[in-house]
Amino acid sequence: MKRLKRQFEAYSGIILDLDGVIWVGKKPILEAVEAVKELRTYGKKVLFVTNNSTRSRKDYEKRLRNLGLKVSIEEIMNSGYATALLLKERYGGGKAYVVGEKGLIGELEGQGLLVIHKDECWENGADFVVVGMDRSFDYWKIATAMRAIRQGALFIATNADKTFPSEKGLLPGAGTMVAAISTASGKEPDIVVGKPSRHIFEMAIRKLNLRKEETLVIGDRIDTDIEGAHKAGIKSLLILTGVTSREEVEKSKIKPDFILNSMKELFV
Amino acid sequence: MKRLKRQFEAYSGIILDLDGVIWVGKKPILEAVEAVKELRTYGKKVLFVTNNSTRSRKDYEKRLRNLGLKVSIEEIMNSGYATALLLKERYGGGKAYVVGEKGLIGELEGQGLLVIHKDECWENGADFVVVGMDRSFDYWKIATAMRAIRQGALFIATNADKTFPSEKGLLPGAGTMVAAISTASGKEPDIVVGKPSRHIFEMAIRKLNLRKEETLVIGDRIDTDIEGAHKAGIKSLLILTGVTSREEVEKSKIKPDFILNSMKELFV
Repeated sequence: MKRLKRQFEAYSGIILDLDGVIWVGKKPILEAVEAVKELRTYGKKVLFVTNNSTRSRKDYEKRLRNLGLKVSIEEIMNSGYATALLLKERYGGGKAYVVGEKGLIGELEGQGLLVIHKDECWENGADFVVVGMDRSFDYWKIATAMRAIRQGALFIATNADKTFPSEKGLLPGAGTMVAAISTASGKEPDIVVGKPSRHIFEMAIRKLNLRKEETLVIGDRIDTDIEGAHKAGIKSLLILTGVTSREEVEKSKIKPDFILNSMKELFV
Repeated sequence: MKRLKRQFEAYSGIILDLDGVIWVGKKPILEAVEAVKELRTYGKKVLFVTNNSTRSRKDYEKRLRNLGLKVSIEEIMNSGYATALLLKERYGGGKAYVVGEKGLIGELEGQGLLVIHKDECWENGADFVVVGMDRSFDYWKIATAMRAIRQGALFIATNADKTFPSEKGLLPGAGTMVAAISTASGKEPDIVVGKPSRHIFEMAIRKLNLRKEETLVIGDRIDTDIEGAHKAGIKSLLILTGVTSREEVEKSKIKPDFILNSMKELFV
């Protein structure tokens, strides 16, 4: 039987990135799936965290279950859910104009926010303008968002990823929508929730009901996972199964606390 | 009879801004209209220059004629026309994917450019991605533009105005579209044609068939008209009938060569 390496024993909670750690695109990383199962036998709490806000947590639950991981929806946090939790926690509730897709709208409504339509926002403004990835993004959504922000609505971005890879090649990410609305409204977002911001990790800690010292972030990207963990004050482990190479780590100013070639190496 | 002030006698060509100089929104500035008529009696060549690319030059011709100014379409330069002239002059021609409205497409086709559709651009790329104000702007236009730019198309912006005033209030300008496409493509425009860039003024000089020293730019904005004239090496006159006050001129690093309260003061 495997044994968890001593340096990882202290962590009761593991925050796991998905793309580059559990799968690469559509291809699962089987040794990572096995490692997650193994971590659970040691009683570790696991939370999967992703910047994607278009898919629902239910979708991820299904995909992870198809890999043989018995996860519940409560073990998944996407940036839409994290945004909804943050707005509920910090402001109680309010009227939100959403530039985003169904997944995001569902999460916001799930936390009791009132999602308003374009016409209603144009007439009466909103408490929040929430901006995520939106394949129905258009001119009048920018115009409506800029108007509400200029009238005082808080400008919230689920994340600032400029692009994302797809089967069609690179496509515009939430950060592109955020840039357009920033330019038109003359202001940067008040809050960016997703990595590399600290907020999504702080919501994750809260969700795990653990202290920072008890938690470890595992991810494949220095500029999102590791940087975000640093900002949130959480220890981090870089896995080299994704986009970052060992040479890139050496050049980077931001250093993870641990580096492993594979999730397998969590164990001896 | 009026007499042109001595300091303005040397200029054979006058490049005139429209909004803030000839009208403010829908309201004409009658003394400016009279001044333009007067300038013509002295044999001065006049060219009206605007950053707007959605309306056609024909529209401006009509509007100016309604004020009693007998102008021809050849005396009007909007940023769409200037972009078309620049691309023709510098590159001869080529395939252009256009994020913009009919006015811009018409100008490009008028100078012999081949304007291609989204599907054609997605499949085979383009020589130029030309971005202007576009009220039909949407996600897939951004995706198509970013793809072509990342594959090597030149990225041309008609202008970079972030917003513009309308009867509905402030609306997103071409600069908002440019910001979205810049973010997604990971690059700034190769050429910005409109003010405060020098290009639109250089095309204006060429159109007037005069030398820089023989030409004067008259405008109401330091950050567009006067800055653009500086960059192009053309003398400039700030008129205080638009957005800039005398206090703002004093604070500004960029100084016009002349300042007048009204176009009337061109004469004694």
